[in-house]
Amino acid sequence: MEAMFTVNNLWILVATCLVFIMHLGFASLEAGFVQRKNVVNILFKNSMIISIGLLTYFFVGYNLMYPGDDYAGGFIGAFGVMDWAAGATADYAAAAEAGATYTGYSDFIFQAMFAATCATIVSGAVAERVKLVPFLIFATVFVGLSYPLTGMWHWGGGWLSEMGFYDFAGSTLVHAAGGFAALAAVILLGARRGKYRADGTVTAIPGHSMPLAAIGVFLLWFGWYGFNGGSVLSADPNGVSLVFVTTSLAAAAGGVAAFFMGYILFKSYDLSMVLNGILGGLVGITAGADLMSGGEAIIIGLIAGTIIPLSIVFFDKTLRLDDPVGATSVHGVCGIWGTLAVGLFGASAGMGQLVTQLIGTLAVGAFSFGTSFLIFSALKATMGIRVDEEEEIRGLDLGEHDMHAYTLSKEDGVFQLTSD
Amino acid sequence: MEAMFTVNNLWILVATCLVFIMHLGFASLEAGFVQRKNVVNILFKNSMIISIGLLTYFFVGYNLMYPGDDYAGGFIGAFGVMDWAAGATADYAAAAEAGATYTGYSDFIFQAMFAATCATIVSGAVAERVKLVPFLIFATVFVGLSYPLTGMWHWGGGWLSEMGFYDFAGSTLVHAAGGFAALAAVILLGARRGKYRADGTVTAIPGHSMPLAAIGVFLLWFGWYGFNGGSVLSADPNGVSLVFVTTSLAAAAGGVAAFFMGYILFKSYDLSMVLNGILGGLVGITAGADLMSGGEAIIIGLIAGTIIPLSIVFFDKTLRLDDPVGATSVHGVCGIWGTLAVGLFGASAGMGQLVTQLIGTLAVGAFSFGTSFLIFSALKATMGIRVDEEEEIRGLDLGEHDMHAYTLSKEDGVFQLTSD
Amino acid sequence: MEAMFTVNNLWILVATCLVFIMHLGFASLEAGFVQRKNVVNILFKNSMIISIGLLTYFFVGYNLMYPGDDYAGGFIGAFGVMDWAAGATADYAAAAEAGATYTGYSDFIFQAMFAATCATIVSGAVAERVKLVPFLIFATVFVGLSYPLTGMWHWGGGWLSEMGFYDFAGSTLVHAAGGFAALAAVILLGARRGKYRADGTVTAIPGHSMPLAAIGVFLLWFGWYGFNGGSVLSADPNGVSLVFVTTSLAAAAGGVAAFFMGYILFKSYDLSMVLNGILGGLVGITAGADLMSGGEAIIIGLIAGTIIPLSIVFFDKTLRLDDPVGATSVHGVCGIWGTLAVGLFGASAGMGQLVTQLIGTLAVGAFSFGTSFLIFSALKATMGIRVDEEEEIRGLDLGEHDMHAYTLSKEDGVFQLTSD
Repeated sequence: MEAMFTVNNLWILVATCLVFIMHLGFASLEAGFVQRKNVVNILFKNSMIISIGLLTYFFVGYNLMYPGDDYAGGFIGAFGVMDWAAGATADYAAAAEAGATYTGYSDFIFQAMFAATCATIVSGAVAERVKLVPFLIFATVFVGLSYPLTGMWHWGGGWLSEMGFYDFAGSTLVHAAGGFAALAAVILLGARRGKYRADGTVTAIPGHSMPLAAIGVFLLWFGWYGFNGGSVLSADPNGVSLVFVTTSLAAAAGGVAAFFMGYILFKSYDLSMVLNGILGGLVGITAGADLMSGGEAIIIGLIAGTIIPLSIVFFDKTLRLDDPVGATSVHGVCGIWGTLAVGLFGASAGMGQLVTQLIGTLAVGAFSFGTSFLIFSALKATMGIRVDEEEEIRGLDLGEHDMHAYTLSKEDGVFQLTSD
Repeated sequence: MEAMFTVNNLWILVATCLVFIMHLGFASLEAGFVQRKNVVNILFKNSMIISIGLLTYFFVGYNLMYPGDDYAGGFIGAFGVMDWAAGATADYAAAAEAGATYTGYSDFIFQAMFAATCATIVSGAVAERVKLVPFLIFATVFVGLSYPLTGMWHWGGGWLSEMGFYDFAGSTLVHAAGGFAALAAVILLGARRGKYRADGTVTAIPGHSMPLAAIGVFLLWFGWYGFNGGSVLSADPNGVSLVFVTTSLAAAAGGVAAFFMGYILFKSYDLSMVLNGILGGLVGITAGADLMSGGEAIIIGLIAGTIIPLSIVFFDKTLRLDDPVGATSVHGVCGIWGTLAVGLFGASAGMGQLVTQLIGTLAVGAFSFGTSFLIFSALKATMGIRVDEEEEIRGLDLGEHDMHAYTLSKEDGVFQLTSD
Repeated sequence: MEAMFTVNNLWILVATCLVFIMHLGFASLEAGFVQRKNVVNILFKNSMIISIGLLTYFFVGYNLMYPGDDYAGGFIGAFGVMDWAAGATADYAAAAEAGATYTGYSDFIFQAMFAATCATIVSGAVAERVKLVPFLIFATVFVGLSYPLTGMWHWGGGWLSEMGFYDFAGSTLVHAAGGFAALAAVILLGARRGKYRADGTVTAIPGHSMPLAAIGVFLLWFGWYGFNGGSVLSADPNGVSLVFVTTSLAAAAGGVAAFFMGYILFKSYDLSMVLNGILGGLVGITAGADLMSGGEAIIIGLIAGTIIPLSIVFFDKTLRLDDPVGATSVHGVCGIWGTLAVGLFGASAGMGQLVTQLIGTLAVGAFSFGTSFLIFSALKATMGIRVDEEEEIRGLDLGEHDMHAYTLSKEDGVFQLTSD
């Protein structure tokens, strides 16, 4: 039994590493999708979000989200610093006998890595015009209070859990929560300068580095094996290996569907769409990764990948909401889709479940949207949330950080020609 | 026994993650080695290959490659979708007692990650002039039919297996198979425009980003611990840790040998050669990573690293075959070398084994070459496999994808001088 | 018991992979922090260091550092190649019964990955002006002889170990050792041309790519879970999961503290400082990662993150020592801080321990400084250690490697404007 406890705990820790590297995935993806003049700003934000997120979760978030039995079924958890004494497990064999699979330390750090991703989702949507310090204040409050509160509703044993809502690894609790927070921020911030012209035209503002964006998506996919696989909360062979297969197939199907739908819409082979399609497939499978067959995972991924280009165009062209990385579509819309899919496919499918899923995802989405709207509104009324016009034109890297993301010197041979 | 099954299965899943990240390694390496105008195209291809590869392997490849007992010894496996019901293991303890070490799901996903690498190897060799859609069709057929078929010959219990052929993790079955498919493609495609002049001179076309190439090689090395280590097919301590040591030492020796041989040939310290030398060492040790001592692994790596610059020059200058990333040398030539090394060094060394190794690697190489030649010929005769001259000059990123890999805006400070 | 041995051994191997990827972390970080004209040179050095390091450790370092019982307590280990026959474990259950947790192969490869990091630390400090071949000779001698010798003093059972010195994962044995070797090299090499003007002004020479630097830091953080977590030397759940938490919190606190101290000093949000602050937190927690509570880890990280900007300014402006990546501050100064922290916080705190810690870190630091000073002095007197002025101006990429890190062709669209 000691060996079972050890191997189960080890998988949670390896999964923790994998979820950690998703933060580099988000940083790379978002850096790649912004203009060259705003790259340092994105990297700075994402370096701070993981740092702030871990500390905030230690001081308040963890207890708010996982209050234990006393608060189960309620709407709000307990305030207080993580209980260090409860981190260690006295007797591995006895704990395993009782069904435990990891230590309290492991539980904390695995969950802490999740928490910070939620704010990272917002980071991309507000890129290229948000003021740094107000954003970091938002991230602190959002990760410290809002995410743990809605998380408690389901994973902490709260009302959604009692209602029979199902969200395996967080299509709603992480991704839709982040995506709807992003939507509120995008509405309050307004579009980037020059994005929507007075004559109705929409200007595409391409990202400055597709290699960075692609590195980001591959790292996110890689990390998702820990995100979904670790959410089995043990190394149970059937459980984890099934999740690996459904996660992989949904991601692949998302990429393929976005390839076709992107071609239909734009008549070109659009790399951004394929990359976001893969992410959409991953977000889509997350709520039911442990419930689906391979075929069902592929269908969920195909639908997610089809949604992505349509949703991005809808937000960008129809609603004229400027989300530089497509976070509202990838995390918000595909988060809802994945949550609903649990009512449509797999072991839990059924009309009752579908309604419960809809209630749950709308409740969390609405709460996150509302909280985010309130926080950003308060910040807007006090310190302002948007950089001034001159800084936006020059770029936030110079404006907020007094540096360039890339520099050249005279001898760099940048003008050397390598082909005819 | 349940714990043994769990830890063995866990290692296969962690190894799966590591092999997955090799796809980012290939994407980075190939993107770094091509010109700036063709970067989106490479990233697009490699994002699609992993997606198509996983789906194809699910629908047909897996059963073709691992048909089970009925087909053992034959030349061709079974057609059909992966049997989902066989994915789960009913009783871990009983399965472990019977010698099983992982679930059917784990088996599928670990093998599926391997399959897609084979097409990725080709991707680099045909870079900068291949048409996107024909290439993706090739990748689908190659991963779905050709790779599983030759894989079945040995790993699926086919005729090479019965003959005593030995290829631990795929020097032949993955790397030579990919390398020879690449060779066929390179021959049919022809060289990039301007590469070989009428006056006999050969133009070097340097890659656009050495950091991307280096990131790629380090990620490939990282992933190779899963590629070779996972091929032990359990977490057996002696087995996996020995493979880690031989893999590490061969890679290191490959880098050092390529450093010296590169200097002898070019009188400069050539980073591309060292990077490819490391890869050559990794490919070289792959067939016998579980059979060699540390000293033997070093010798195999040294020879692979010495071969790399010679082989690259031979293909480029003597044969005038244009392979932008050196895939035929790294995967094809070093794949053969690694396969033969099993007959020369380690526990299995001997003349009989050497002959068997030679037959096996030539059979697989020839079949892959032939299949690839046929597929590309059919595509060439119908839709064409090469972009037109104007598109090649402008770059495939604009031609196929209507976008740049990198963009600059006026404010990007690209002309700022940072040193005197 | 077989299962316990297998899971413990597996964690050491996974940790080995994580420490390996730190080499890509260092390569990316250092490449990002140098000028564009010296990028190939850094990548070349770091590709060679890991290769040379693994081979050197196999042939001499491992036995020097871990001589076994006969040499325990002494000052110098045994010369000789790693004993291959001792790599395998005959009976897993019996070995586990006797307290063993991994094979000899695992021990070698995990330690070998550590050894090479030490030389990598120096690589960044001497960037942009050191001659390639003398540096590689230094790296060979340093990794082969100096690092194992001081390592033996504590981890090999030598005099520091007998004295009660405590350095869990190497704040002193790896980081201060590397940092002080770097300091000696920086003193002997002199500053980069143009760095310190005759009129007393100090020129900032910004790195060429902040994304590369950020990728490097995230990868280092990722790898540190293996560096610290693997140093538990088993998969013991309480041990490893506690180390994960303290490591994470210290890194986060280091980033936050450097954010504030950077703002106080420079009145801007300095990404380099935040990135180095995270690394400082990681180095700081390394000596006592298994002894601290969450709160203590945060304090250690906060102090490390506060030290970083002050130390970097002190070396750069006051001492006028030119260290392009801040390696002396991150690894040297925070290495000392982390070592002393074991005497100030956590289970071992006390004046006696503090004095022991001080003696240990100064002894190792002084020895590494001295060895490094001697080696570089000998190289300076014979082959020279610095490139000539013309090469430094043109860049080492052209001078040593005859290539550019990045190339452009006419069609690259580099002048396309993407915003107004």
